[in-house]
Amino acid sequence: MSNTSCESAAAPGYYQHHIFFCLNERSNGEACCAQHNAQAAFDRCKAQVRAAGLAGPGKVRVNKAGCLDRCSAGPVAVVYPEGVWYSYVDADDIDEIVESHLRNGQVVERLVTPAELGR
Amino acid sequence: MSNTSCESAAAPGYYQHHIFFCLNERSNGEACCAQHNAQAAFDRCKAQVRAAGLAGPGKVRVNKAGCLDRCSAGPVAVVYPEGVWYSYVDADDIDEIVESHLRNGQVVERLVTPAELGR
Repeated sequence: MSNTSCESAAAPGYYQHHIFFCLNERSNGEACCAQHNAQAAFDRCKAQVRAAGLAGPGKVRVNKAGCLDRCSAGPVAVVYPEGVWYSYVDADDIDEIVESHLRNGQVVERLVTPAELGR
Repeated sequence: MSNTSCESAAAPGYYQHHIFFCLNERSNGEACCAQHNAQAAFDRCKAQVRAAGLAGPGKVRVNKAGCLDRCSAGPVAVVYPEGVWYSYVDADDIDEIVESHLRNGQVVERLVTPAELGR
């Protein structure tokens, strides 16, 4: 077994941008992203990335995820490896994330999740 | 609207290590992580991280994910922001990822997914 530090493993990633949408649905009445059209946002993002020719290894992957545990800021998505979190509202927000961040590498500051918002 | 480059946004992440397990299940007979005990591995990882006191903001998050699209290397999990992909086999592998990588920041090289393996 040979281990190396995470820092030294910084090769180009399998995906350039890997975005995860929280699609969690709670049945107990607590806030959850699924109440806020997260599935529609995921579908929109997936379709826009594909239409823009951005999908695939070395490019962009749009992924479903379970609860990301920042429910008070939901609906949320996180883009890695940058670790940029977004709280989005509508389809226009998704389109801007795709065009600005996923295509051009520019963070959409107005949609960035406030650091103090967690579960 | 003000945008900044992703590089300049490199603040400490909401999670230090965010690991996503592909739990995708295919019904068409194609290979999928769910055929390879991915759910058990996720459950094990979640439990071990919690037991080790590593769970939470600023620390570790263990997440469910849909298809990560590296099916030929499955079952897979990816740790961000490092972008380290693992192909694991059993509970011992999970325990080693938790202890070595998620606790001590050392990549478990023997379990790293070969770069050429994709969908």
